[in-house]
Amino acid sequence: MTLLKNDRFLRALLKQPVDVTPVWMMRQAGRYLPEYRASRAKAGNFMSLMQNPQFACEVTLQPLERYPLDAAILFSDILTIPDAMGQGLYFETGEGPRFKKVINTAADIEALPIPDPEQDLGYVMDAVRTIRGALNGRVPLIGFSGSPWTLATYMVEGGSSKDFRKSKAMLYDNPQAMHVLLDKLAQAVTGYLNGQIRAGAQAVQIFDTWGGSLSAAAYQEFSLAYMQQIVNGLIRQHEGRQVPVILFTKNGGLWLESMAATGAEALGLDWTCDLGQARARVGDKVALQGNMDPTVLYARPAAIRAEVARILASYGSGSGHVFNLGHGITPEVDPAHAGAFIEAVHEFSAPYHQGNVRHQETESHQAGV
Amino acid sequence: MTLLKNDRFLRALLKQPVDVTPVWMMRQAGRYLPEYRASRAKAGNFMSLMQNPQFACEVTLQPLERYPLDAAILFSDILTIPDAMGQGLYFETGEGPRFKKVINTAADIEALPIPDPEQDLGYVMDAVRTIRGALNGRVPLIGFSGSPWTLATYMVEGGSSKDFRKSKAMLYDNPQAMHVLLDKLAQAVTGYLNGQIRAGAQAVQIFDTWGGSLSAAAYQEFSLAYMQQIVNGLIRQHEGRQVPVILFTKNGGLWLESMAATGAEALGLDWTCDLGQARARVGDKVALQGNMDPTVLYARPAAIRAEVARILASYGSGSGHVFNLGHGITPEVDPAHAGAFIEAVHEFSAPYHQGNVRHQETESHQAGV
Repeated sequence: MTLLKNDRFLRALLKQPVDVTPVWMMRQAGRYLPEYRASRAKAGNFMSLMQNPQFACEVTLQPLERYPLDAAILFSDILTIPDAMGQGLYFETGEGPRFKKVINTAADIEALPIPDPEQDLGYVMDAVRTIRGALNGRVPLIGFSGSPWTLATYMVEGGSSKDFRKSKAMLYDNPQAMHVLLDKLAQAVTGYLNGQIRAGAQAVQIFDTWGGSLSAAAYQEFSLAYMQQIVNGLIRQHEGRQVPVILFTKNGGLWLESMAATGAEALGLDWTCDLGQARARVGDKVALQGNMDPTVLYARPAAIRAEVARILASYGSGSGHVFNLGHGITPEVDPAHAGAFIEAVHEFSAPYHQGNVRHQETESHQAGV
Repeated sequence: MTLLKNDRFLRALLKQPVDVTPVWMMRQAGRYLPEYRASRAKAGNFMSLMQNPQFACEVTLQPLERYPLDAAILFSDILTIPDAMGQGLYFETGEGPRFKKVINTAADIEALPIPDPEQDLGYVMDAVRTIRGALNGRVPLIGFSGSPWTLATYMVEGGSSKDFRKSKAMLYDNPQAMHVLLDKLAQAVTGYLNGQIRAGAQAVQIFDTWGGSLSAAAYQEFSLAYMQQIVNGLIRQHEGRQVPVILFTKNGGLWLESMAATGAEALGLDWTCDLGQARARVGDKVALQGNMDPTVLYARPAAIRAEVARILASYGSGSGHVFNLGHGITPEVDPAHAGAFIEAVHEFSAPYHQGNVRHQETESHQAGV
């Protein structure tokens, strides 16, 4: 167990004082970086890149070499679990993810095994161990998974979808079958995230990318209830330190109160939420992560800096904010613009944390226990 | 001027008593209907269908022949205004709308004319007059337009977009130019909707399809402010009757309070809002229109009926609710399922309006003045 040299990210998730607002970017190891594209070309394709722990480690660290980011996130895909359940994940060029097997019936759902993280998803656990070693305490490592509802949509649709026709028809026509599928996925995600925590992940994020496609009532019953089941089953202390959980439902801004009631330490916000209003709504219950529109990175650095300043002012003073984009960074962004973004967060946030000094692992360790 | 035989829709928008909750469907004249597909084939393509007042009237009335709908909506497209500004609208099969000319610079924006509704969009005004005559007072006719921000995205992107890269870059990099464009569009939309009202539209809806892609701050400045400008400029009384305005920002559920403050009579809701919570938030300020997830129509009629009952219970007793889908009906829906939906709204809503009798035009007329 190495000491953390920069623990701002974990401290902010626990609402402990920080010197500046920590920042990372969803999909920070991604196609906007030429070095990522080179690694991917070397690996041959996305699956070979992701399933090789050495390659996964290499691309995870790339953005940290360029930018003073406050966290690393495991390079992987949200669809590793359905793949380990036997669905046969593959990627068509320009088409996004696809599955060879598709879930159509209750019998298909009954037949699904619940994967064992070390046996069936060992390449992910190995990647976490490799990255954690290579980080050597530089910043914390975030593990992640897709949410049960999000995974279910891909498994029932057979890939990406615009309107979730098959998965929503199953939800409304055969809610029992959908509940069996979601319960299995919640068990699988719990085991998978606990495996990542045991392997060295220091915080975990649940990506509920498609929960926001549901009605308010269906969200509670078919997405949030299963994220609650996961939160209840997660390892919450590891290596003598609290392991914070971040829930991120894209387009979930209307439901922050019920998300905050799950016991997760933090909520991810997309850019449609006003950050200050979100803070007022959740009070001291959770930290908030977000929420700049990723398309702001298409604008000039001066405009990026102005938007960072606006968002920091909206949150105001005190800890409990991890700066991030409201969704993943896109392939067309100029890496220099990402750099201007990250620099502006550190530069402009210092006045909101006046009097706080840079903390080290030992103190974070004590505070987190 | 004919008497209205069924004025439930207008009464509900004004929060006057109704016997049952009125219902219509966004895109109710559309590809899910075989008779629509036949008319379109006869016209040759979508543009010829839309630009011919006789065809537009024919397809507008088709869903009313099948279902006991409480309103008709002009068959047209939201992109008629940019087309009349000289952008050259066309449709690529399977690709959605495109423009021959694209807005790139402040000079492109300066050069844009503001169309005159009768001179430049006469085919729409003629369609309104033709439909209004053919309806002969059966149900009210809704006119509509896209919102300035929504129209601007298509004009700057040159068509549909996934992430609004060009339009958002312009918004952040050159907000002055974007404001000039939005002001011109707000003037154009005001004239266009007033033209529709003079031609016979009895209510108007502003479709802000892409306002929900903006940050909370950008929504206020670049979308809502221009819808406010339109509301301020609209004819609010015509034919001795109030002309209600419906604002519909898809994914705008977080911003209902500020939308309600514009002076519009009603807000459209997508399905991510809980209808009862939305009603509590806006109080008596506005009526609400929505909000069933259109994908519920993929499920069996029993499931559709259950969801209608749930939404009616969420709104509760009293007027002020127009039932609708939270977005347009999709081409793959079975027309019998749409019928089950409409029937369920009338059947299940009666108990929420107990003691109210069916009203006729004369009374509505007086109440609305």
